[in-house]
Amino acid sequence: MLSLITDRALKFAAPADADQAEQNARLSAFSMTGWMKIAQRESAAELDRIHAAAQRIRRESGALVLVGAGGSSLGARALISALGDGDFSVFFCGDNLSAKRMTRLRERLKTRDYSINIVSKTGTTLETLAAARVLLSDMEARYGTAAFGRVYVTAGEEDNALSRFARERECELFAIPRDVGGRYSVLSPAGLLPAAAAGVDIDALISGARDMAQSGRHTALRYAATRRGLYASGYRTEIFAPFEADLSDLASWWRQLFGESEGKGGGGIFPSRAAFTADLHSMGQYIQQGRRDIFETLLSVRDGGTLVIPRASYFGGVSDDLVGTDFAELNAAARRAVADAHAAGGVPVLEIELARLDAYNIGQAVYFFQLACAYSGVLSGINPFDQPGVESYKRKLKEILSNNRRSF
Amino acid sequence: MLSLITDRALKFAAPADADQAEQNARLSAFSMTGWMKIAQRESAAELDRIHAAAQRIRRESGALVLVGAGGSSLGARALISALGDGDFSVFFCGDNLSAKRMTRLRERLKTRDYSINIVSKTGTTLETLAAARVLLSDMEARYGTAAFGRVYVTAGEEDNALSRFARERECELFAIPRDVGGRYSVLSPAGLLPAAAAGVDIDALISGARDMAQSGRHTALRYAATRRGLYASGYRTEIFAPFEADLSDLASWWRQLFGESEGKGGGGIFPSRAAFTADLHSMGQYIQQGRRDIFETLLSVRDGGTLVIPRASYFGGVSDDLVGTDFAELNAAARRAVADAHAAGGVPVLEIELARLDAYNIGQAVYFFQLACAYSGVLSGINPFDQPGVESYKRKLKEILSNNRRSF
Repeated sequence: MLSLITDRALKFAAPADADQAEQNARLSAFSMTGWMKIAQRESAAELDRIHAAAQRIRRESGALVLVGAGGSSLGARALISALGDGDFSVFFCGDNLSAKRMTRLRERLKTRDYSINIVSKTGTTLETLAAARVLLSDMEARYGTAAFGRVYVTAGEEDNALSRFARERECELFAIPRDVGGRYSVLSPAGLLPAAAAGVDIDALISGARDMAQSGRHTALRYAATRRGLYASGYRTEIFAPFEADLSDLASWWRQLFGESEGKGGGGIFPSRAAFTADLHSMGQYIQQGRRDIFETLLSVRDGGTLVIPRASYFGGVSDDLVGTDFAELNAAARRAVADAHAAGGVPVLEIELARLDAYNIGQAVYFFQLACAYSGVLSGINPFDQPGVESYKRKLKEILSNNRRSF
Repeated sequence: MLSLITDRALKFAAPADADQAEQNARLSAFSMTGWMKIAQRESAAELDRIHAAAQRIRRESGALVLVGAGGSSLGARALISALGDGDFSVFFCGDNLSAKRMTRLRERLKTRDYSINIVSKTGTTLETLAAARVLLSDMEARYGTAAFGRVYVTAGEEDNALSRFARERECELFAIPRDVGGRYSVLSPAGLLPAAAAGVDIDALISGARDMAQSGRHTALRYAATRRGLYASGYRTEIFAPFEADLSDLASWWRQLFGESEGKGGGGIFPSRAAFTADLHSMGQYIQQGRRDIFETLLSVRDGGTLVIPRASYFGGVSDDLVGTDFAELNAAARRAVADAHAAGGVPVLEIELARLDAYNIGQAVYFFQLACAYSGVLSGINPFDQPGVESYKRKLKEILSNNRRSF
């Protein structure tokens, strides 16, 4: 179960005024809300197909390469870091243009059989297609036409060049629903297939999301309204900080979700991620005494496993007082100390706690943040599902590349 | 060689007024400037000892575990990600309290011989000592008294419990100079020993830093003064974004350096990191159209290796226009497109370019940012070498832990 504590934020600002029924009505006016139906829509047949594909990948290959960017990468990465069973390697590419990285990945793949999952809703993502071409060329040389049996494609359900390729070559094809945007697609095949291949219990994940959809609206709206209240009071930057190292990638997923949804029209809370306690040793000073326009959302796990610090007689004299203490106790104490010290220093603190680090709770968390982000949009009068600004850069890039070509 | 381009920032704000001689005089009034002498101070004998230790680690072990936090981890991590030869594994721990992570690390270490490097200037870092105890206990069980030959300690040259332990047990001991703070210690043994073990050419690194110390003052001051000018004009958040995936950890090192140096007295530029082009797919929308109080520092590598996109006949019909294009060409075009589009959207852009991704250039970059950060402090009338705010949290934590103990 997910729980929300807002005490240490309410001292700084009142939540925005938010009538549940009214916000729901506003939300339902948008078309891109397919992710809200996802728990119901992911039919048993679709989930069976994902399970079967994941099992085939694990049986035939020593690794899966996820080729995707943004929402076609960050969600899967978050699920796998948090919940993967560690017995199967998933590599990520297709989200950057580093020749060095791509070359290193190809080297690593030489020593094992692999499958790839190309994920792009539009089928036009430059980095993804560039990386896919490199890998497909290698697979062509290595596996011949059998390569297609190792290529899994996840694309928008609309017809595009990528889904046509998959159909022509008879690669297994999964669809991202038309009304689900990239950053809301983690519970579609974009996130579910690679997660399942990595050993994540995707049924429990969906189950957590479904329960949150049924019972979590009030909590999500409260979180959204508190954040908007803080923003209206001058708190402009949010630091999202999990107290569990394996949730760092969830923070990167969170950053896209909120940044891309809220950052428009010259406004929006600036999203920044941290990983505690590690980043207390880098950002702790700033948070305590820097600009007083930041607030924090701390994400912790109540039952985070146990590890008692041993005597280690060799280390006698150094930190003997730690002997017999549990990492979990230290981590919980650190979280309380952070919340107290930062709030006392003028930083509003919101706290979200998951009962356990398991698929059910992460399913809850993922749905919770998506819903809170959508509410945040309607509360502030913006469309939380579009991204009108990303075209400027893409247009420039096309111009530059076509000029390059003319000059050859 | 490192070069700096400020054109796309100067349209937005004039640099702060900065007389080189005056700023140098102010800087030399501080005591914690030992890192400025480091290129000279790292004597041939000290470097020989680091080389010898690194060679012994690689000979005796299949992996090195770096146990450290903040400045005792981020610098080494940045060097190893950017420059490591990939033939030797370095694991990181001692900067967080995740029982799950620590348990997984112990599992991995079961199958190989390993050495550890405990790094803490004060010898009191909680996470570091907790992790060190766990590992030392495992090593005691596995290697008996021979374990001490596998333990390398890097501590402040002042006498403390950690350095006493190393002396008593005859572990090899390296010193972080008294007048070098944690976040400025990457070119001390704190960064150099683990980097050398990972195959980084630390002589070239030092050589790059030395050349930057001799010839780069003007450039570093110009960068610092431009940033301060932007801050004075209302640009409050800086996004530091390398266009090379292997420089992501350098961005985390940068964030501590600037955040901990500047974030005090209720002010300071808020430091945020990104990795391009990947994060254009998550933060691109915000940067283009969100709050207009952000600016960017783009870090790129002129010669970033080459990888031509192959024909991949299997992929015919999908992005055929990419065939024959080099990743490096695409990456360079992306950088120009980003700088143009973001500047046109109201975001001042500073650009730093390294000629190559090698130890000499990274040595230059590291020294450049340290110097720029120090100048930034003196330009804005703060001490760039202290961190008075980190005590609040530590005090709270001690209170909570001692209350816990009383309640047992």
